[in-house]
Amino acid sequence: MATPCHGYVNNGAPQNGVVLPVETGAVQPQNSRFLDPAAFRRQGYQVINFIADYYARVGDYPVHPNVNLGFLRRQLPADAPSRPESSDAFGAALRDVRDLTLPGLTHWQGPRHFAHFPASSSTVAALGEALTAGINVVPFTWAASPAATELEMVVVDWLGKALHLPESLMFCGGGGGTLLGTSCEAILCAIVAARDSKLADIGSRRIGDLVVYCSDQTHFAFRKAAHIAGIHRDNYREIATYRDNMFALSPAELHAAMQADVDAGLTTAVDPIGELRAVADAHGAWVHVDAAYARSALVCPEFCHLIAGTEAVDSFSMNAHRWLLANTDCCALWVRTPSLLVAALGTEQEYILKDAAAEGHDVVDYKDWSVTLTRRFRALKVWLVLRCYGVEGLRGHVRAHVRMAASFESKVQADARFEVTATRQFALVCFRLRSPEKLGGEKAANELNRRLLEEVNAAGSGPYMSSAMVGGIYMLRCAVGSTLTEERHVNEAWKVVQDRAASLLRKMENTCRGVAK
Amino acid sequence: MATPCHGYVNNGAPQNGVVLPVETGAVQPQNSRFLDPAAFRRQGYQVINFIADYYARVGDYPVHPNVNLGFLRRQLPADAPSRPESSDAFGAALRDVRDLTLPGLTHWQGPRHFAHFPASSSTVAALGEALTAGINVVPFTWAASPAATELEMVVVDWLGKALHLPESLMFCGGGGGTLLGTSCEAILCAIVAARDSKLADIGSRRIGDLVVYCSDQTHFAFRKAAHIAGIHRDNYREIATYRDNMFALSPAELHAAMQADVDAGLTTAVDPIGELRAVADAHGAWVHVDAAYARSALVCPEFCHLIAGTEAVDSFSMNAHRWLLANTDCCALWVRTPSLLVAALGTEQEYILKDAAAEGHDVVDYKDWSVTLTRRFRALKVWLVLRCYGVEGLRGHVRAHVRMAASFESKVQADARFEVTATRQFALVCFRLRSPEKLGGEKAANELNRRLLEEVNAAGSGPYMSSAMVGGIYMLRCAVGSTLTEERHVNEAWKVVQDRAASLLRKMENTCRGVAK
Repeated sequence: MATPCHGYVNNGAPQNGVVLPVETGAVQPQNSRFLDPAAFRRQGYQVINFIADYYARVGDYPVHPNVNLGFLRRQLPADAPSRPESSDAFGAALRDVRDLTLPGLTHWQGPRHFAHFPASSSTVAALGEALTAGINVVPFTWAASPAATELEMVVVDWLGKALHLPESLMFCGGGGGTLLGTSCEAILCAIVAARDSKLADIGSRRIGDLVVYCSDQTHFAFRKAAHIAGIHRDNYREIATYRDNMFALSPAELHAAMQADVDAGLTTAVDPIGELRAVADAHGAWVHVDAAYARSALVCPEFCHLIAGTEAVDSFSMNAHRWLLANTDCCALWVRTPSLLVAALGTEQEYILKDAAAEGHDVVDYKDWSVTLTRRFRALKVWLVLRCYGVEGLRGHVRAHVRMAASFESKVQADARFEVTATRQFALVCFRLRSPEKLGGEKAANELNRRLLEEVNAAGSGPYMSSAMVGGIYMLRCAVGSTLTEERHVNEAWKVVQDRAASLLRKMENTCRGVAK
Repeated sequence: MATPCHGYVNNGAPQNGVVLPVETGAVQPQNSRFLDPAAFRRQGYQVINFIADYYARVGDYPVHPNVNLGFLRRQLPADAPSRPESSDAFGAALRDVRDLTLPGLTHWQGPRHFAHFPASSSTVAALGEALTAGINVVPFTWAASPAATELEMVVVDWLGKALHLPESLMFCGGGGGTLLGTSCEAILCAIVAARDSKLADIGSRRIGDLVVYCSDQTHFAFRKAAHIAGIHRDNYREIATYRDNMFALSPAELHAAMQADVDAGLTTAVDPIGELRAVADAHGAWVHVDAAYARSALVCPEFCHLIAGTEAVDSFSMNAHRWLLANTDCCALWVRTPSLLVAALGTEQEYILKDAAAEGHDVVDYKDWSVTLTRRFRALKVWLVLRCYGVEGLRGHVRAHVRMAASFESKVQADARFEVTATRQFALVCFRLRSPEKLGGEKAANELNRRLLEEVNAAGSGPYMSSAMVGGIYMLRCAVGSTLTEERHVNEAWKVVQDRAASLLRKMENTCRGVAK
């Protein structure tokens, strides 16, 4: 073992002989000491207090830590300890989580986290995860934990209805859903099912002829999933979208792209854009809609007009861990024809015990609905969240964020130095500082906004945002999505953006003046 | 909403107007009520007590529930509640978890769970999961939570060393590792990296020419992963193994299979058998070793002779959630050449903010090491487990199970009616009842053992085992792996097997006698 450092001193514990119990000092040879109820209760209270304290003070941490690459690796020993380092190893480890780890995290739950995408936490989902980890069953088949499979079937229908999905995607309508880890996983499952169903028609050796289509605004998870599934990189078609059309995908352009491929002897496979079903139908394509983020908003009836056209999709996925208070990870995938998913992802082996009760029935073995065999009991937290907050609770959560984002957007619009660069999507505002004329074109504007973001994020105690490059335009992204974010944090964030912009513009004016001299 | 049923009564809570806070009765319009520290503390203690009580009495549940398909779905409403059902919705939901869900689960943590594979829980890992869910960061890049990425880099090296892996697979030796969800995911990542690295040599359009090889004893996760990655089903080669060679893979047979494919113009891609490196090398194959289960045993030096030949593998995976007390899910994947993994699975987009500190350095962005982008902070629980139990603690855990399995095996061997059907692998005993001569051949023996397993598992309060079919031989599997399993549970299990066998044989004798009359 390397030189002990902070928190890793062995405290004189013997290095040889019998394995010492972790906490009591008495010899306890049984493995059952690792699941001792009394120890769990004691340590569990410590953990609950730890997390409660974290929620109370998470706003005091800089959202993004000011640390250098390697800062933590340098502080930790090169080897795991051979024995628990002290009689209170758990307490010591918790202190290290607090003192070494927390200051080096990006605090996604901080009220000033406006970067990337929301990862809305809730107490109920966090505790649901704790329950799942504590109970630790592995519901890979119905028989391997019947209640876990059945609860999952129930909550995906609950969730689907709450989101106003078409019934054809739910168990109650002949389809069905499952809870996976992430969007990438869900998209990969859909692509593999689409691929295999297409190959069954055209010949199993023609994988090289399959083409996938998406808009150039599609999340790169789609590209990644298609690549993993063996779709050739030359066979992705990212249909260009334009700012003057608000970056929406044009059916005419999709049709043209598909026709060109058909003329070239290729075959359409997957299209993530539900609104373009008619075009897809003409080419027999599988339509998958991934709405990792925005879909959460559809718990609110006022956003339901956005659903038009998705009634006929083949599959649909959305991350409940983004905006529906379900904590990471929890992505729901629904499919119209579960048998196609099972045909693509199913496995059958003698050693998987089929329960007598399940034989001959239409049993759902979720191992055949996903990439993985081993899976967690994710349905538990979703059940708890829906029961404890109700669909109205989720609506309130989403609406409050949308309201705050709208307020941020109106502030941007009211300041002539700035512009909103894309239609606000729910609680995401994309904006930028207009480049003063004397500084020149897009390139200078991009550079200006890159510096602006740097300065906004450098504030430490201030907001933390991210950026996007769309159609050659660099923009700042303000994603309102943290559970703890309140109106005042959004107002403060805007104030920081304005201040930094003013100082930046002043500096540049001075530089220009200096050059002019 | 459907008719309310058990636990779903709305208790007179108003159905319209402002969203009510979950517990306090006061109007609290902020989303922050979903992360209220006081509510978390109160509910958290409830959950800790719930889990502690579960550990205390999990042995009282039948391991496998006696329920029919649909038993739980029928009891739950068709829609999620619109509002929290009462002022103590959380308490009510917890009671339903206890009364509706627990009795319908297969209790993987029960001391009599000998089925499938181990899912060893520990208090520390369960609480590590709770911490991860509570903190809820998303370390998809280094910058997105630096301490999470660095801790992962540290613990995969700790774990690799504890398992006596070659340094070439660890960060300290130029390789590196990551923590994924499951073996399937890890194998898929390795196959995609192998596939792409091979296609770069032979031409990116030749995916149809790639062949994967494994022994017919390989877990079907391998087949599934290869299929997802687009390897044609005709291009899996399962090399037959034989009982008289203890189901080991023969290098000569592998070589012959590879040579036949080369002669047919195909290309070798992936071989999961490390010991056959020399054969693989001759064909430029990527060698992946998956040791979802057995590898855990290599924390013990006395099992290290089994490592011979794996020094030169390209990638290696093992499930820490199986036998190393890490709770589901936690699969470690190590690779010799991380750049090949990143080339296959990497994504690069403008909107991912690179931290200034990371620019130009060899930063690890774990989103490029796996199928998924969003990921959980799994390193935390592994860190806690290794610190609180030490490597010696894990050794003690594994050794106790191996000892119990050896004891079970010797009981089987001592009873002439039974035979051990495959060499005991660590804590897994495969065995069967010999078929009495008058009953005839293998088919009758298989049927006899099928009925034996049924009767063993039907006992309710008794052990729960699973089965395997290998080389046409049906066998019972007794996998000792639950943290709470003690010697007495194993002894009881054997007693049940003997009793049921005796009664079964008696019945059959009677039937034969009846027929003979």
